[in-house]
Amino acid sequence: LKALIITIGDEILIGQTIDTNSAWIGNKLNEIGIEIDQILSVRDREDAIIEALEFAINKRFPLVILTGGLGPTKDDITKKVLCKFFDTSLEMNAEILLKIESYFKARGRDILDTNRQQAALPKNCVILPNNLGTASGMLFEKDNSMVVSMPGVPYEMKGIFEEQLIPHLKSNFDLPAIYHKTIMFEGIGESFLAEKIKDWEESLNAEAIKIAYLPSPGVVKVRLTAMGNKMESLQEKVNRKAKELSALMPKFIFGEDDIKLEETISEILNNSGKTISTAESCTGGYIAHLLTSVAGSSNYFKGSIVSYANEVKENQLGVSSSDLENFGAVSKEVVEQMATGVRSRLKTDYAISTSGVAGPTGGTEVKPVGFVWIAIASKHQVISKKFQFEKDRARNIRRTAMSALNMLRREVENELSLSKA
Amino acid sequence: LKALIITIGDEILIGQTIDTNSAWIGNKLNEIGIEIDQILSVRDREDAIIEALEFAINKRFPLVILTGGLGPTKDDITKKVLCKFFDTSLEMNAEILLKIESYFKARGRDILDTNRQQAALPKNCVILPNNLGTASGMLFEKDNSMVVSMPGVPYEMKGIFEEQLIPHLKSNFDLPAIYHKTIMFEGIGESFLAEKIKDWEESLNAEAIKIAYLPSPGVVKVRLTAMGNKMESLQEKVNRKAKELSALMPKFIFGEDDIKLEETISEILNNSGKTISTAESCTGGYIAHLLTSVAGSSNYFKGSIVSYANEVKENQLGVSSSDLENFGAVSKEVVEQMATGVRSRLKTDYAISTSGVAGPTGGTEVKPVGFVWIAIASKHQVISKKFQFEKDRARNIRRTAMSALNMLRREVENELSLSKA
Repeated sequence: LKALIITIGDEILIGQTIDTNSAWIGNKLNEIGIEIDQILSVRDREDAIIEALEFAINKRFPLVILTGGLGPTKDDITKKVLCKFFDTSLEMNAEILLKIESYFKARGRDILDTNRQQAALPKNCVILPNNLGTASGMLFEKDNSMVVSMPGVPYEMKGIFEEQLIPHLKSNFDLPAIYHKTIMFEGIGESFLAEKIKDWEESLNAEAIKIAYLPSPGVVKVRLTAMGNKMESLQEKVNRKAKELSALMPKFIFGEDDIKLEETISEILNNSGKTISTAESCTGGYIAHLLTSVAGSSNYFKGSIVSYANEVKENQLGVSSSDLENFGAVSKEVVEQMATGVRSRLKTDYAISTSGVAGPTGGTEVKPVGFVWIAIASKHQVISKKFQFEKDRARNIRRTAMSALNMLRREVENELSLSKA
Repeated sequence: LKALIITIGDEILIGQTIDTNSAWIGNKLNEIGIEIDQILSVRDREDAIIEALEFAINKRFPLVILTGGLGPTKDDITKKVLCKFFDTSLEMNAEILLKIESYFKARGRDILDTNRQQAALPKNCVILPNNLGTASGMLFEKDNSMVVSMPGVPYEMKGIFEEQLIPHLKSNFDLPAIYHKTIMFEGIGESFLAEKIKDWEESLNAEAIKIAYLPSPGVVKVRLTAMGNKMESLQEKVNRKAKELSALMPKFIFGEDDIKLEETISEILNNSGKTISTAESCTGGYIAHLLTSVAGSSNYFKGSIVSYANEVKENQLGVSSSDLENFGAVSKEVVEQMATGVRSRLKTDYAISTSGVAGPTGGTEVKPVGFVWIAIASKHQVISKKFQFEKDRARNIRRTAMSALNMLRREVENELSLSKA
């Protein structure tokens, strides 16, 4: 079953908004066996929207998902255009009007006439109520195509999609089985990895498994995909090949299925009952942010001392002022003292520290932009490692955080396996 | 001049990768007066890519930008398909091969045959060299369309685009003038804002200025656009209307032209020579991360104490243990002590603190998920404010940070204007 996504909005085409909805929808539809064949982004103009809808119907896409252009302001024209295309008109829906009024009441906000107008909906569509906002979803049928329109605000679109649309799709389409598995690598480049696993990759052909490499700063994802009739046999063969891959490259794999490194850390620390703190210079709080983006992180994350200024490294972490002077802030000596300092002050089992030249300025010949020291402190030892990353500030912060979390993962796993042995 | 972007890659359609390239390209092309008419994302299969290219040529787009599918691994087929479509073949380019070899040498990495193959390029294209990676850009001409193919890795694509493509476009096309201005709001909802500025919005029609509202968590952007022949007159009328808007809503506007709130803070603190620290509970280091994502932030940001655990609030920030017990961590008393505590310990002019229930668990009837206290401490006073945000953890963290930064902005601006008066 092939689907088309149409996103509507000048803000996407002039690059002011990144289209995150399509990726989210693509992912969710894949899980239930619907493949996205194309994504089309068009301007919020009547002719552009009509042309996209005609394309969808002519190409006989069984499912067409539209997002965007349903807000209360004047640049939102999707509802009007849908009425024209599906030859219908708006009518006030009393139930939805009540919902909108109570939405504003619950938030103690005044309701405006433009808000009330969002309850005026096309006569010949199925309404998909929005429990998180005021723009309803709408579902039309034409020439064997199902056309669904949802608001562009990601939060609201996701609510309508999961609560209303998914059950509708499951009961209306006979869906095939599709199975993906993604293996997550940190600390190895795409082409180097591909070379290392060449023979294994060849062996996927015989099993009709598709492979894709998806690199991002610090992380390479390898995705395996199989499609067929029986989910069980797809899972069996994909999982078997994934296990073979894990056995080939254990050091660089931190998880599966789009798990984030911070979620892997969360599992390991939750299971072992260990705690963590961070002392961050060049990452500026980003590692603490990643750790605390995981729900329930208060179980193992106690806190962080972001020591951007040298005096904070001295006063709050106990780094030796003479070492700061002699070796500089970006040095093995300082980064190790930062890790032991935060570990003892915040009384945690483990601590991560970072110190580096994030850029774009501040580099020297000996310590250029992208030069970073990372340390991990535990009860038993302090380990540290230097890295040379890139010229871009955001990428350096990201790659430092990823490398630090992977160093921590390996250290905790090593210590846990030693203590078991 | 209308352009089409085609992004190639299954990873986009199954939602594993968010297409950030198109937004970036759309933004950059707009700056030089080229409008993106559509964005089309297709699978990395020969038939899908050929179909997209035929669509582009049939629709007579003068400019077509392709990204993706140029990597060294087997799932990257764009180069092969372009050869077929443009009826040409690959030939080894000695100059590019040298570049690739020196790229690996400089990084101390072994070069593989698949890397060398990236120097095999179509005979009848203009090569756009890649100074940040190994996949070259390629520029073809057919039936009055210019077709440009670039790698999908954002970092490398951006390098080729800015260094090679932009000069090429400027010398090959006669470009119209287009002018955008974006005004950034924090602390007011989209429809409430639209109602407040209704009359002003009406007046834009007479000047042929287009308006769009772009909401995201905590921030609403209002974008004004004018197109014509003379840049000067476009700038004059758009800037005049923007000034009128600023005069209408001064409290909620923190900047212009997609400036980030943390960049506004950076300007204000740099100009005034003031320093800042943060004490973060529910934001978990995210405010420190935002502040340090701005280059040069070490001029005014000294550090942060992320106090997730109550004992860290007590020991590292000096929060009273009886207040923690009597009022709870999410209270006016505690958040104010956090702000004054970090301000005195890190010796900064200003301090921000946050304490709240980020969710999804931890909420109570009195303090539900999304309930947050924020404080700002200065030499003169401590101000604090409570908020009720949403149910989603990531959105609560984001909105808390945005609100805190805007509170800081207003406080610093107030104190600076008082000290001048």
